[in-house]
Amino acid sequence: MTTQESADIFGNNKSILITNVNDGTGPVDIFIDAEETISDIGCEIRKRHRGEAEFIVDGAGALALPGLSNTHTHAAMSLLRGYADDMILQDWLAQKIWPLEAHLTADDVYWGTRLACLEMIRTGTTAFNDMYFFMESAAKAVDEAGIRALLCYGFIDLGDAEKRERECRATEALVAHIRGLKNSRIHAAAGPHAPYTVSPEGLKWCGEFSREQDIPVHIHLSETEKEVNDCVARHKKRPAALLDECGLLSPRTIAAHGCWLDDAECALLGKRGVSVSHNPASNMKLATHRALPYRELVAAGANVCLGTDGCASNNNLDLFEEMKIAALLQKFFWNDPTVLAAPEALGMATANGAKALGFGDGALVAGAPADLILVTTRTPANTPLHNAASNLVYACSGSAVETTICNGRVLMFDREIPGEEKVLAEAAGAAARLVRRAQTPS
Amino acid sequence: MTTQESADIFGNNKSILITNVNDGTGPVDIFIDAEETISDIGCEIRKRHRGEAEFIVDGAGALALPGLSNTHTHAAMSLLRGYADDMILQDWLAQKIWPLEAHLTADDVYWGTRLACLEMIRTGTTAFNDMYFFMESAAKAVDEAGIRALLCYGFIDLGDAEKRERECRATEALVAHIRGLKNSRIHAAAGPHAPYTVSPEGLKWCGEFSREQDIPVHIHLSETEKEVNDCVARHKKRPAALLDECGLLSPRTIAAHGCWLDDAECALLGKRGVSVSHNPASNMKLATHRALPYRELVAAGANVCLGTDGCASNNNLDLFEEMKIAALLQKFFWNDPTVLAAPEALGMATANGAKALGFGDGALVAGAPADLILVTTRTPANTPLHNAASNLVYACSGSAVETTICNGRVLMFDREIPGEEKVLAEAAGAAARLVRRAQTPS
Repeated sequence: MTTQESADIFGNNKSILITNVNDGTGPVDIFIDAEETISDIGCEIRKRHRGEAEFIVDGAGALALPGLSNTHTHAAMSLLRGYADDMILQDWLAQKIWPLEAHLTADDVYWGTRLACLEMIRTGTTAFNDMYFFMESAAKAVDEAGIRALLCYGFIDLGDAEKRERECRATEALVAHIRGLKNSRIHAAAGPHAPYTVSPEGLKWCGEFSREQDIPVHIHLSETEKEVNDCVARHKKRPAALLDECGLLSPRTIAAHGCWLDDAECALLGKRGVSVSHNPASNMKLATHRALPYRELVAAGANVCLGTDGCASNNNLDLFEEMKIAALLQKFFWNDPTVLAAPEALGMATANGAKALGFGDGALVAGAPADLILVTTRTPANTPLHNAASNLVYACSGSAVETTICNGRVLMFDREIPGEEKVLAEAAGAAARLVRRAQTPS
Repeated sequence: MTTQESADIFGNNKSILITNVNDGTGPVDIFIDAEETISDIGCEIRKRHRGEAEFIVDGAGALALPGLSNTHTHAAMSLLRGYADDMILQDWLAQKIWPLEAHLTADDVYWGTRLACLEMIRTGTTAFNDMYFFMESAAKAVDEAGIRALLCYGFIDLGDAEKRERECRATEALVAHIRGLKNSRIHAAAGPHAPYTVSPEGLKWCGEFSREQDIPVHIHLSETEKEVNDCVARHKKRPAALLDECGLLSPRTIAAHGCWLDDAECALLGKRGVSVSHNPASNMKLATHRALPYRELVAAGANVCLGTDGCASNNNLDLFEEMKIAALLQKFFWNDPTVLAAPEALGMATANGAKALGFGDGALVAGAPADLILVTTRTPANTPLHNAASNLVYACSGSAVETTICNGRVLMFDREIPGEEKVLAEAAGAAARLVRRAQTPS
């Protein structure tokens, strides 16, 4: 890949012509005219735009794809990558994760989110759905990193009315803060953590608030068998029915995990047009023992998309790897090698993910957001190239991504990301200090 | 990573000093004195060797690991990568894979194996265990690529005495051919394909031949439930018992898959000191529906190692990805997040794999074969570095490997592999011609 002066290609408002790139249909040219959308795409359109383009990128030897969407993560948990693994879920949370998280600062969340954005840019993800704490710091990190995010504060009341009030105010404050940024790449959501950590009153408040504000809802749903059993014992109904009763199921909802959904719940989620985020690597690592009922959800009309979960339970943010693990887990668990074929996995990470997050169509068409990635074919994983979708899902990792463009701005070119070293160093420092604070007797 | 004249570092008989590299214990220096083994390793040993070293590689910012061992693959199937996926096993084989394989030539196997070796070098694998056809061509490819391989001809008699005779002669010829190469990196094995494709007479011949020649045995074992049920119906015993009766279970045996082994078979394989190659990605993609009984095999004393299977059912040869999928699948299927912790997964891909293939210890110690890789820590997947084993298994892909050394020879340095472009182009051409031949009516 070449351009005249590659150092200058980074930054806003550059007009870029990508020539001869394979978009899955054959070689095309793509023109981005210094705005935030793809202005033209097609065969041999370079003739029309050569004069206008400040930069011409030779796309021969690359596949062009829409930028991928990670529909469930806790970005700043990148600082906890590798801190604790291979443990029983409750021990892992109570002995390792929560004690460390108790020492998190706004600065940690800023650098953790910068690190996460860096990893996503490097592996071709241009939008993500995040639930965590200190989300103003996360928004600052996303703003500076240049990708898109739907951000929510993790609302947890544990049935305590006073705590609920505080969570409502925190949610309102974050939404107001993000509206105030006036950054089209950063949206706010309501984030009721899960049916087992939020009271029905809290769930209802989140539902009403999201309708009122016309913002998405991001929630965990039926990750483990235990939470489903507890829900039935406490509320006499399964989690999806509880959420529906609380007004939380709509096309604005993104429900993560869904491992233990039964057929009736799949039908309900489909009927309500919910997006369900499949997180296969995390589910396997934490041993949920059941895989998302993918076929039932799709048949019911739900929008099934893909997420990595946080780096403490994955431990990376590479959606190429996640596409593969999703396709593999579905085949293995449901005992059918035809479930979740490669083109469907690609659709989950692109069109379905973009739809879930409300960031365009996740497609390479004129007028769509200029969120796109170039994946090299000059690598063993893409040789031979019998079938691009198969190679992208089953053979490539995110390391095959060479160039990442979001909202018309080049964030990585030819594997170079300006400022990468500083982010790596600062995030490593923040992680080390966090562990030291957690280990110092208070 | 830097060295004086990096272009010259490739090739045999270079003395190389790697300084300040993290081997998991802390920063060490490694000296390879133009021979095939690690001549010295330790803290600050650079003072002793600086004068002798032709090349000094700055290992700061890298982890040093033994080269990984892929204990089950069909390397030349790299040409079939992405040719057919997401199908029922029998349809996939009968409609897609076998018709294409019927048109394979020796030249295809040469370029397919070169492509596979290239991918393995790039992802840190320095030894592999291969079963396929035209294995003289595979040997030529391995010889030129510079890595290690244990090669066998896939012996299939389907109960036909005449075919059996031909398979015995082909096996003998390959072993003689490989002995004649006098290349310490290339060993021969007997390769009875599987209990369901080889008659008891054929299995017995392979067992006797391997004892007589003192060579390993490479076989498929209990990949699918159907083959186990068929074995019991035909032979009144399960596959491992059948192999034992035919004299095929010993510490020289590498049995691939093992998904459907029962407790008694695990005990038997452990007692005989067999190596069992876990191939989780292939098992998931082809929907075997049961995972290797890892804990039972380890408890019984079997040597459990790791394989990718061929690129038609994976679809890559990246053992970093395979370590992660192994650890994830074991946890998920056996419903216990503590099964197959990260250090064990690393051990499967290094020490256990090297032991299975008979290529040294898979450890970084003085006197061990100089098979080692340098993995960058200057990447999001290795930031922060709370725990190197965790990051290597759960966060990294093979793309984190920057330098690969096998038998004292540098095969990749700072991600550069001499001759890579030619191999990619020739392999792509061979794959395209293969498909055309298969599609031309004869």
